[in-house]
Amino acid sequence: MRIKVINPNTSDEMTRSIHQVATAYASLGTEIVTTHPTVGPVSIESFYDEYQAIPQVLAEIKRNEEDFDAFVLACWGDPGTDAVREMVPQPVVGIAEASMYAANAIAPRWSVVTTLRRSHHMVEAVVKKTGLAEHCASVRCIDLPVLACEEDSDAVIAGLVQVGRQALEIDGAEAIILGCAGMGGMAAYISQQLSVPCVDPVGAGVRFAELLVALRLQTSKYMTYRPPEAKLFH
Amino acid sequence: MRIKVINPNTSDEMTRSIHQVATAYASLGTEIVTTHPTVGPVSIESFYDEYQAIPQVLAEIKRNEEDFDAFVLACWGDPGTDAVREMVPQPVVGIAEASMYAANAIAPRWSVVTTLRRSHHMVEAVVKKTGLAEHCASVRCIDLPVLACEEDSDAVIAGLVQVGRQALEIDGAEAIILGCAGMGGMAAYISQQLSVPCVDPVGAGVRFAELLVALRLQTSKYMTYRPPEAKLFH
Amino acid sequence: MRIKVINPNTSDEMTRSIHQVATAYASLGTEIVTTHPTVGPVSIESFYDEYQAIPQVLAEIKRNEEDFDAFVLACWGDPGTDAVREMVPQPVVGIAEASMYAANAIAPRWSVVTTLRRSHHMVEAVVKKTGLAEHCASVRCIDLPVLACEEDSDAVIAGLVQVGRQALEIDGAEAIILGCAGMGGMAAYISQQLSVPCVDPVGAGVRFAELLVALRLQTSKYMTYRPPEAKLFH
Amino acid sequence: MRIKVINPNTSDEMTRSIHQVATAYASLGTEIVTTHPTVGPVSIESFYDEYQAIPQVLAEIKRNEEDFDAFVLACWGDPGTDAVREMVPQPVVGIAEASMYAANAIAPRWSVVTTLRRSHHMVEAVVKKTGLAEHCASVRCIDLPVLACEEDSDAVIAGLVQVGRQALEIDGAEAIILGCAGMGGMAAYISQQLSVPCVDPVGAGVRFAELLVALRLQTSKYMTYRPPEAKLFH
Amino acid sequence: MRIKVINPNTSDEMTRSIHQVATAYASLGTEIVTTHPTVGPVSIESFYDEYQAIPQVLAEIKRNEEDFDAFVLACWGDPGTDAVREMVPQPVVGIAEASMYAANAIAPRWSVVTTLRRSHHMVEAVVKKTGLAEHCASVRCIDLPVLACEEDSDAVIAGLVQVGRQALEIDGAEAIILGCAGMGGMAAYISQQLSVPCVDPVGAGVRFAELLVALRLQTSKYMTYRPPEAKLFH
Amino acid sequence: MRIKVINPNTSDEMTRSIHQVATAYASLGTEIVTTHPTVGPVSIESFYDEYQAIPQVLAEIKRNEEDFDAFVLACWGDPGTDAVREMVPQPVVGIAEASMYAANAIAPRWSVVTTLRRSHHMVEAVVKKTGLAEHCASVRCIDLPVLACEEDSDAVIAGLVQVGRQALEIDGAEAIILGCAGMGGMAAYISQQLSVPCVDPVGAGVRFAELLVALRLQTSKYMTYRPPEAKLFH
Repeated sequence: MRIKVINPNTSDEMTRSIHQVATAYASLGTEIVTTHPTVGPVSIESFYDEYQAIPQVLAEIKRNEEDFDAFVLACWGDPGTDAVREMVPQPVVGIAEASMYAANAIAPRWSVVTTLRRSHHMVEAVVKKTGLAEHCASVRCIDLPVLACEEDSDAVIAGLVQVGRQALEIDGAEAIILGCAGMGGMAAYISQQLSVPCVDPVGAGVRFAELLVALRLQTSKYMTYRPPEAKLFH
Repeated sequence: MRIKVINPNTSDEMTRSIHQVATAYASLGTEIVTTHPTVGPVSIESFYDEYQAIPQVLAEIKRNEEDFDAFVLACWGDPGTDAVREMVPQPVVGIAEASMYAANAIAPRWSVVTTLRRSHHMVEAVVKKTGLAEHCASVRCIDLPVLACEEDSDAVIAGLVQVGRQALEIDGAEAIILGCAGMGGMAAYISQQLSVPCVDPVGAGVRFAELLVALRLQTSKYMTYRPPEAKLFH
Repeated sequence: MRIKVINPNTSDEMTRSIHQVATAYASLGTEIVTTHPTVGPVSIESFYDEYQAIPQVLAEIKRNEEDFDAFVLACWGDPGTDAVREMVPQPVVGIAEASMYAANAIAPRWSVVTTLRRSHHMVEAVVKKTGLAEHCASVRCIDLPVLACEEDSDAVIAGLVQVGRQALEIDGAEAIILGCAGMGGMAAYISQQLSVPCVDPVGAGVRFAELLVALRLQTSKYMTYRPPEAKLFH
Repeated sequence: MRIKVINPNTSDEMTRSIHQVATAYASLGTEIVTTHPTVGPVSIESFYDEYQAIPQVLAEIKRNEEDFDAFVLACWGDPGTDAVREMVPQPVVGIAEASMYAANAIAPRWSVVTTLRRSHHMVEAVVKKTGLAEHCASVRCIDLPVLACEEDSDAVIAGLVQVGRQALEIDGAEAIILGCAGMGGMAAYISQQLSVPCVDPVGAGVRFAELLVALRLQTSKYMTYRPPEAKLFH
Repeated sequence: MRIKVINPNTSDEMTRSIHQVATAYASLGTEIVTTHPTVGPVSIESFYDEYQAIPQVLAEIKRNEEDFDAFVLACWGDPGTDAVREMVPQPVVGIAEASMYAANAIAPRWSVVTTLRRSHHMVEAVVKKTGLAEHCASVRCIDLPVLACEEDSDAVIAGLVQVGRQALEIDGAEAIILGCAGMGGMAAYISQQLSVPCVDPVGAGVRFAELLVALRLQTSKYMTYRPPEAKLFH
Repeated sequence: MRIKVINPNTSDEMTRSIHQVATAYASLGTEIVTTHPTVGPVSIESFYDEYQAIPQVLAEIKRNEEDFDAFVLACWGDPGTDAVREMVPQPVVGIAEASMYAANAIAPRWSVVTTLRRSHHMVEAVVKKTGLAEHCASVRCIDLPVLACEEDSDAVIAGLVQVGRQALEIDGAEAIILGCAGMGGMAAYISQQLSVPCVDPVGAGVRFAELLVALRLQTSKYMTYRPPEAKLFH
């Protein structure tokens, strides 16, 4: 099985880190190819960044789409998943949805811990769209930028332990989801510190993509996810 | 007051039609400037089209942003409104939200009538995001493409009257929203045929933008809609 | 265009204040006539007050209904709007709904700040009825009576700044709605103190009524808002 | 125990019929006093009628309030219950809420069958306010006026059987609620015709009022239902 | 009228206490028979306990089912009510649902106070299933086990007063529901201490069962609650 | 990896069929052990059946719990999952939740097709509990018993194709979930007949259990799913 993991931002370093995590969590026999667009923002922290990144992600999909059994979008906003589902028949997984499904099976309520405070509303919107808002105890932010995950991972981990503890003690969470692809590899330590399960979103995305392939499920082309209408692009 | 109306697709013809409607509905003393991106799809009928169009819309915003008091995005998916709200302090209006507010004040429940059946889910998602799903009796589609509004407006109008009647008689709607910017100018005739009010979305968008300017309301920069983080774009 | 603004309570002073604000926010060319019933409570602070006021409001509507293009009910409970929509074809606007629509366009979540704590539940019920509860971060009360807006406006403004700050810092609001018609004229100062937009409900009501008239929208008489059945009144 | 049942409309005949039903369903030892306002509409079929009736209902409450252990408002819109809860300490029951609670205990989903089609939205709003909308399979109307319950009860019963059958076969209902106080006494026959339980709302109201008295529960005066503020009434 | 009250746990002492409370709240002329299974857990504090208890409860129902007019399940999880509704035609009442209906009539929002913290999620699930989650201000736990109600009732009462006060002052509750059958008899004291109404769940269950019998309502056998399919049990 | 799949009913034939499907979908290197209780109903078609089966399922869990890495409950009601989560640290998967997650990733809305019409409400309750009700277009029943899956699989398949088609054409579904463990092995044919993806629930359950193990996620013991309290069982 070959899975293409796309990091929607243009950071080489984060892409390498995502690749490492994705490979570590993948099944034996699954080949992981991790790429990122060559054009676009180095991190996604606003709606503006997200919309700039999506067309580049779509171009990445198109490059060699028939070579893969599934696609994973490795950003906790699941940016552009709907469009990718229109473009290709293979299953498409956003790491946000995959990590929420995993959390839902091991705890009645969970919290998402993420980076900048400004993303609070964006993350809540992702949770709401997936339909699992009632299971989400809270979204908590460490107020460090996305790239701090690479450049100052100690500060990020310390922040995650702190807001994770608040989620458990104040908000009613019983498990933690790491709400950024750059947090891959931090789950084990945080889980140990907090004594509750902690979901790695990249790992969840890769394994959920494998699940869909194993079930021979492709995206429904019945109506909403039909291929985009052929048309003129100026 | 100067309002910039942006048609997110690249159709000259539809842009002229939107401009005509926007001008007809604007207050005396409001200057309407209607533009469209030079690059991108000629119509927006899929998530794919929408994501291709949005960065071009954002570029249109940036071109001469300080010359305008408000911005109106003239596509019934409100594409990119969140990002535009980050980019500029002036109020930003999507024609979908504006037309739902207007409908909500004149009927307990209303339906949105729109173009291709494949857009059914996209339109429902817009309604849900605005928070008014309980007031939406149904989304009904005529299954004609967006550009038919320009090229075969008789067929479009006939289709709208037909599905509008179904919305009233079967779904419990008591008013109709035209769910496409290309349907501007059709509201009066459809309202007369169906004997219920029919909301022109472009008119609603322009007047709602005027309302926000008159109330001296600008987009909150407290948290979610702060300017995008300064960062490297490859 | 002629708009009749009805203050549902019987306070001359508040009616004058509402008229001043309504006129200040209205378009050039819009004539504002502001009235209040001669019979009924001097302020509306309970369900009891509200139900006593409504039939008097309905009588005010009837007095010279054909002289106006739209009606605005200037109380943040939108008392009796449903009945007025049955009585007349012209559009009818409650200031609560109008101010929520305005806030929704400039912030992802907003709070309503209002008078007595006992009104907390009444205000929440108005928000819920409009369908926008998910966008409402909180309702916060200063616990001063409605007429304090006229008699001790300094205390009211100080209270609004205080609870508005709590709404921003604790509840996740990013804009503020003034939840009482008597608070007209206070929006600019509060917005400046809190550095977020603040919605004047009377202004929103007047401008939203203008919007509906400009869109040539009248209340749907298809079913729910048909004229009241002719019948015997003992 | 003494319970005052108030028919909010001014029809003598319907009041007598309500009294008969209320007495038939009351416990031994419960004295039922049934009254109606002397002023107001002979039936409630619109928001207009409802708002005209409520102040008269409140006056009826005040006449000899200390003589009763509980109050029942016998109209399926529960008009004015919130205000009555402010006015008196004794428990106040609307027949709509009481009949929904009863139906909820004997069927997973139920439908409300009522009079004029124009009331469809009003009835849905009552269901929604009570919080039980997910259990409501549908609202179905026979499109006969309220007073037909007295003047042409055969037509009303035939209509109820017909729309009740549609509720069971099409909408997924498994029990029926009679959605008008004038339908008292019809439940047994309709239940027999449809072979499902049918809730008499007046009976449910009286028995639920008895329940609250037996539990020594009075309306909470903690905040929302405090006595109305003392104030000037012009 | 004969009502069988079943305590789903196997504690003799709690059964006696439930019987005392049930009898005290029942109408004159209602005979209360209170039983408990001979096999199963002495208290229900986890999903595990609940599922172990339910088949024993069902056996208790079957023992002499035709001798009773209604059944009350005296545990605040309403364990097995759905199955009992399939088994017998008589009405079946869970004390949780009955106490929520009572609270809903006397306060706009109420809180449930209960025993161990681990039950927090279970209690919320019961509230949600009944459909009244919007009226529930909070669930608060004293973190004492169920049997403490019998063995250390002073500590239980002190805890309930404390968390009840938090529910009123912090969560927005205006009435209190005792969320455990073992708390019968404590309502009057707690209500007096907190100056708000407090609902005894056992009393509410018994009186609500009487209400259904008086309305001659039996469980609908139209679809969901048909008798269990006849089949082989190994 | 060793996964124990428990068929909650006592049918040998269905257990063999489930084992075959589970093994076919499992990863290389995963050992599947499929068992069923020796005591209990041969099929689960009512709440009564379900509650009789659950304690036997719990006993099956206990028999050799330390030998497995995860547990799958192979019945589309996810019976007893909450209790199993209390009992063991290993992850526990219900096939209903797993199949809904899979469907959610390949279609905006899906329908569940199942056996007897009486189960309609039970299945809806499972969907609602999982939080994905907005994504569920409908539940459709073929009105054949569970064991027909083994005894008359042609009739079952024909029925599933028929109601699946109705789900697509009438209800707005774009994918199909097989809502019974006995339908394992039918997904490929139904998918081909309907030209939309069809989810095998047993396959989804096994693969989702593997996913949780691979992510090293165990059930949170923070609060709700702590081990059951030690206590006396009579």
